[in-house]
Amino acid sequence: MNKTITVLPGDGIGLEVVNAATAVLDKTGELYGHQFEYQFADIGGTSIDKNGTPLPQATIDTCLKSDGVLLGAVGGPKWDNLPGSERPEKGLLGIRKALNLFANLRPVTGHKSLTDSSTLRKEVVDNVDLMIVRELTGGLYFGEPQERREVDGEEAAVDTLQYKKSEIERIVRQAFELAKVRRKKLTSVDKANVLESSRLWRETAEEISEDYPEVELDHVLVDNAAMQLIRDPKQFDVIVTENMFGDILSDEASMLTGSLGMLPSASIGSEVPGLYEPVHGSAPDIAGEGKANPLAAIASSAMMLKYSFGMHEEAAAIDRAVSTVLTDGHRTGDIAKEGETILSTDDMLEKVLEAL
Amino acid sequence: MNKTITVLPGDGIGLEVVNAATAVLDKTGELYGHQFEYQFADIGGTSIDKNGTPLPQATIDTCLKSDGVLLGAVGGPKWDNLPGSERPEKGLLGIRKALNLFANLRPVTGHKSLTDSSTLRKEVVDNVDLMIVRELTGGLYFGEPQERREVDGEEAAVDTLQYKKSEIERIVRQAFELAKVRRKKLTSVDKANVLESSRLWRETAEEISEDYPEVELDHVLVDNAAMQLIRDPKQFDVIVTENMFGDILSDEASMLTGSLGMLPSASIGSEVPGLYEPVHGSAPDIAGEGKANPLAAIASSAMMLKYSFGMHEEAAAIDRAVSTVLTDGHRTGDIAKEGETILSTDDMLEKVLEAL
Ligand SMILES: CC(C)[C@H](C(=O)O)[C@@H](O)C(=O)O
Ligand SMILES: CC(C)[C@H](C(=O)O)[C@@H](O)C(=O)O
Repeated sequence: MNKTITVLPGDGIGLEVVNAATAVLDKTGELYGHQFEYQFADIGGTSIDKNGTPLPQATIDTCLKSDGVLLGAVGGPKWDNLPGSERPEKGLLGIRKALNLFANLRPVTGHKSLTDSSTLRKEVVDNVDLMIVRELTGGLYFGEPQERREVDGEEAAVDTLQYKKSEIERIVRQAFELAKVRRKKLTSVDKANVLESSRLWRETAEEISEDYPEVELDHVLVDNAAMQLIRDPKQFDVIVTENMFGDILSDEASMLTGSLGMLPSASIGSEVPGLYEPVHGSAPDIAGEGKANPLAAIASSAMMLKYSFGMHEEAAAIDRAVSTVLTDGHRTGDIAKEGETILSTDDMLEKVLEAL
Repeated sequence: MNKTITVLPGDGIGLEVVNAATAVLDKTGELYGHQFEYQFADIGGTSIDKNGTPLPQATIDTCLKSDGVLLGAVGGPKWDNLPGSERPEKGLLGIRKALNLFANLRPVTGHKSLTDSSTLRKEVVDNVDLMIVRELTGGLYFGEPQERREVDGEEAAVDTLQYKKSEIERIVRQAFELAKVRRKKLTSVDKANVLESSRLWRETAEEISEDYPEVELDHVLVDNAAMQLIRDPKQFDVIVTENMFGDILSDEASMLTGSLGMLPSASIGSEVPGLYEPVHGSAPDIAGEGKANPLAAIASSAMMLKYSFGMHEEAAAIDRAVSTVLTDGHRTGDIAKEGETILSTDDMLEKVLEAL
């Protein structure tokens, strides 16, 4: 197959890690007879510096004309003091909305050889394998009004948490589809004892569940979910939740296995292209030094093959290569323990290419 | 001193644990020359059954006439299928609002002898000592509109996250006051890169910080805070945040030290009375069997002495007694390991009274 991929390096270590990911994609293409073509475009702080905006229309257009989008990372202290509407993160929120990427998939799995670096006990996190499905284009992030106003004669600020039933339906359906091909367990997280939007969420999840009799659905309150993720993460298979709860819980979950530097994510909509990015940030402190861990970006490109291109075998090959490299004890600085040899981004990439 | 305390046993094990707490208060009164008088009132599911409402006006009136309120727990499966406005939790939300209890204080400390039962590694949670200060009467919990509506011709639901500046000021000030007499570090948690209410929150926290030059203030995004609590909880002293974030983070934090059954909480306003309750739930499965761990309720009564009655020495005596009992290896079922003797609620109470 021939596929066009938009690459958005973004800020900090973004460029280094997407470069490693495209090298892995090229090699995979060679092995399986595919051709990947890349178009680079600007986003985030780098784009603010260059174009005066974190998300130029040209970037959106380029993305829309491609089959998949690979993003590095956005943000950094350099742009932290800009007003809200001009910050790098606006680029991220903007592209989610522009491409209608309503589903954010964050798999959390631990590489056995790394559970030592988790702050949780080995027996609690060994073999954790869960997937958080976060709604990405609704809720508090985009609800209107979002404004300052005067209330009782003083300054106040307001945000709006709104969900339409169809927005809940499509994300819950997505989560059921994923659970169906995994361990068939779906946990819907809400705050139905307090929020009206959560009550609509829960009702809707119940309705959709009738189309998936083979999947077990249960409902957990968000405060309890935050506890259960620490108490016993292995109880979970797929978790589905609204935007803000998903933001909090998926970051919490990413700390469980000691594999933060390895975690990929996918943001997908009903039509192509999906957007794939590592969970880690832009790490401005080590940017440009060749120290970045490229494995999360590489794993993100594997998700692209799987979810956007339907190349399941190819994706599995990349995942296996990443696993092999870790089992063989290769480490970048972020995951090395005292005394272990530290590989550069390029060396680590080399190891993955060899393993492929 | 003479103090009048309203006791709200509530549901499940509530009655058993508040009875233990009042016994400890009586003994403390004897030792230090105070007289505590109790008025019992209804709340929660028990009150629904008896009075048809989770929070009768009589309960509010009784609370308002007392110097402090001790609550057991509310809720249970029996009332789970009632409509939102008639559920036991409404009693809890109602009393917070009626008494204007805007600050929820949740100390998280680990008893050394219990860190074994944490799912986190010993070295990560040993000596954790943090306090979460949660705003309790604003935000998504109480914002209007909260309703179903039609949007784009379909059903939708909306909740409103609103904060007035004065609401932020008073809770942040409260948190600074606490930090001042602790380790002088305050972490304000928000989502200022997305929410307007968080930007007002952050600005206001910065302003108030000018009155507390001796306290170090920093700002952490809520998703990052959820990670940091697991990565390195010892970095925190006092954390202050809005209602919903506080709900999630305080439950997450309560899982850290393996001491959930021991954690107290205080909900206070500008005027008396404050409300004190264990963090654990109503545990309907063991209600009435004399198996409940009374230590969280006992520790909550110690918080009442400290925060509502200014009896610091007395509160410290109770905390010491609880510590001694744990160090001596006494355990109720929830915290016992295999092979350890399991004490009943009454036996555990006896041990605390002896230690006092
Ligand atoms: C940068 C920020 C706006 C973003 C979010 O909150 O969605 C990030 O935390 C994420 O999870 O992708
Ligand atoms: C019972 C529920 C409404 C309540 C809340 O969300 O505030 C509880 O979770 C708590 O934290 O006290």
